[in-house]
Amino acid sequence: MADAPYKLILLRHGESEWNAKNLFTGWVDVNLTTKGEKEAVRGGELLKDAGLLPDVVHTSVQRRAIRTANLALDAADRHWIPVRRSWRLNERHYGALQGKDKAQTRAEYGEEQFMLWRRSYDTPPPELADDSEWSQSADPRYADIPSELRPRTECLKDVVTRMLPYWYDGILPDLQVRRTVLVAAHGNSLRALVKHLDGISDADIAGLNIPTGIPLAYELDADFRPSTPGGTYLDPETARAAIEAVKQQGKK
Amino acid sequence: MADAPYKLILLRHGESEWNAKNLFTGWVDVNLTTKGEKEAVRGGELLKDAGLLPDVVHTSVQRRAIRTANLALDAADRHWIPVRRSWRLNERHYGALQGKDKAQTRAEYGEEQFMLWRRSYDTPPPELADDSEWSQSADPRYADIPSELRPRTECLKDVVTRMLPYWYDGILPDLQVRRTVLVAAHGNSLRALVKHLDGISDADIAGLNIPTGIPLAYELDADFRPSTPGGTYLDPETARAAIEAVKQQGKK
Repeated sequence: MADAPYKLILLRHGESEWNAKNLFTGWVDVNLTTKGEKEAVRGGELLKDAGLLPDVVHTSVQRRAIRTANLALDAADRHWIPVRRSWRLNERHYGALQGKDKAQTRAEYGEEQFMLWRRSYDTPPPELADDSEWSQSADPRYADIPSELRPRTECLKDVVTRMLPYWYDGILPDLQVRRTVLVAAHGNSLRALVKHLDGISDADIAGLNIPTGIPLAYELDADFRPSTPGGTYLDPETARAAIEAVKQQGKK
Repeated sequence: MADAPYKLILLRHGESEWNAKNLFTGWVDVNLTTKGEKEAVRGGELLKDAGLLPDVVHTSVQRRAIRTANLALDAADRHWIPVRRSWRLNERHYGALQGKDKAQTRAEYGEEQFMLWRRSYDTPPPELADDSEWSQSADPRYADIPSELRPRTECLKDVVTRMLPYWYDGILPDLQVRRTVLVAAHGNSLRALVKHLDGISDADIAGLNIPTGIPLAYELDADFRPSTPGGTYLDPETARAAIEAVKQQGKK
């Protein structure tokens, strides 16, 4: 424990209604599917079986991550722990792509542009207009965020930039008092965090996929760096298969 | 708003597995029944329909209140608000009665003793032994409570005493910054709070029943006293019928 005192668990939400429909979701607040709910419960069971019990949970302010946390913690008998939330853990804002079908977008803009928006580190899609039906400009949960800070589109670099202040100011203080921390969030906010933790380059992060519903456990040293690079999935075999499946997702 | 600036909503959890079985529950951490889940969702729909939207939720650390809050907030599209929890909002600790059948307890101890334990303000049941299967002495969620503070039995007076510090130090600060506060808790912790708010006497509180799953809305004045004594149930007709049913509960 002396060289790996801090325990961090990352959990990506299970399948959402729009994952299932192959739509760009971003900040649109869709729900889990029944499959996604089951993934969340299974995630909690994996935590319980491993005896890796969170003392506090951090979530985004989006339903699919919040429900994943609630279901997983209920399954792990840790429903009673303190809860903290931040929009800084939200999924990447997909800009004008929010609400669009992924396959149609590829057909419309071509493979190169499509992959650039999906996987380049620093090229955001066009901004989403505030009056779009898929905009969150009138959502009360974001009312306290100053307009200049509120995303209208994001690339992964933007997610790293807005997520990191919460890592330092919101999550580290819990780790520092030796709490086991669960972060229930999204594919891209967790990729942003893993990029930081494991020191992954801007180029290499494109190849990193985090599977849904499988807790990824990190032990962090005194500098809050992983003792084991990449962390440890609690169900490595399923994680491996799921990572492969996510890689195929864009090719549908 | 000038004379009734603070908005407080109380929500008693829906039917639990042990309500349905007519067992004394107290601090035993039983789950909601399917009926109880539906009550919670309906409670959230009532909040949404009334436009009475919580900015923050306070719960006990017990599953039936936590799940009620989660389900109600999800139904009201307020799943994303901050969450605070305290054991001080827990149900009354029922001491040695925890886990016992209510009808059997009445038969064993007689009507007078039974009603004394259930309804007297200041007579607690016998203490629950730490090695009882129904004790929470080894439960990690209570590990931080000093032993002398941790209940082994409680009368309603004891609940008032341990709940009030949380009212003052945990809930009032949220009201003071003009947040609409939802408290999702239990029959007796909410009776204790209502006793305080409405200034109900030790004798009269025995006659007060709070129905499950129906939000009870209070507007509080500058002294944090109700503008309308007793508050307002969001579904007054169902509340009236439910209050009558609770009164009959001990007579099964």
